[in-house]
Amino acid sequence: MVTEIKMKTAMQQYIDGFNKKDSKLLISLFADHARIEDPVGGGKIVAGKTEIVSFYEKAVTMVDQLELDAPIRGSHSNFAAMAFKILMKIDGKDIQINCIDVMEFDDSGKIIDMKAYHGPGDMHTR
Amino acid sequence: MVTEIKMKTAMQQYIDGFNKKDSKLLISLFADHARIEDPVGGGKIVAGKTEIVSFYEKAVTMVDQLELDAPIRGSHSNFAAMAFKILMKIDGKDIQINCIDVMEFDDSGKIIDMKAYHGPGDMHTR
Repeated sequence: MVTEIKMKTAMQQYIDGFNKKDSKLLISLFADHARIEDPVGGGKIVAGKTEIVSFYEKAVTMVDQLELDAPIRGSHSNFAAMAFKILMKIDGKDIQINCIDVMEFDDSGKIIDMKAYHGPGDMHTR
Repeated sequence: MVTEIKMKTAMQQYIDGFNKKDSKLLISLFADHARIEDPVGGGKIVAGKTEIVSFYEKAVTMVDQLELDAPIRGSHSNFAAMAFKILMKIDGKDIQINCIDVMEFDDSGKIIDMKAYHGPGDMHTR
């Protein structure tokens, strides 16, 4: 089983990767066969290395900053979760999206599944 | 589909139910066949009305207070999530547990699945 510390370190790197616009760092956190649902219920699944690379290469150009709302949570298994704000520009407007990500890890510490919980009501101008 | 507002209202009632020590309110938020994994990976599943009643009747006696860390998040489907602190006493010590709950709702707005993400590293004295 992966340790809580290893999962929390990876999730902090996820935050840092966005703030450094380092898509390579972000991509390195995922297993090759990982699956991303962002947002949950949005109807699109990002699955596998090629799609993950495209997703984060684009995402780092769109996001200004991620800010944790509270310490990253672990669990008693290979899951961890974090609440954070996404600060970005959409059509020239400064937007904030409140989000919670739940990540599942393999035993080596790579993310195999990510679910991003945010809905229309979690996005507002700032 | 249940609305984001309905899910967020139910989750705020979950927080309020603990803070009023109102186990009846908490229990009323769940569908009869709901399933609770608290903590995720802890090995125990609370399933069905009888077990949910026992779980919350005991829980309200143990918890001093729940405090949201940030606004409750919705999604584009029947899921919502929230980050909060559990303040409680264990063996006479004041303990804080950092937690994220993810809840799935049925179309009527009752919780059918709850997963509570917190691990050994999320508990500390205060």
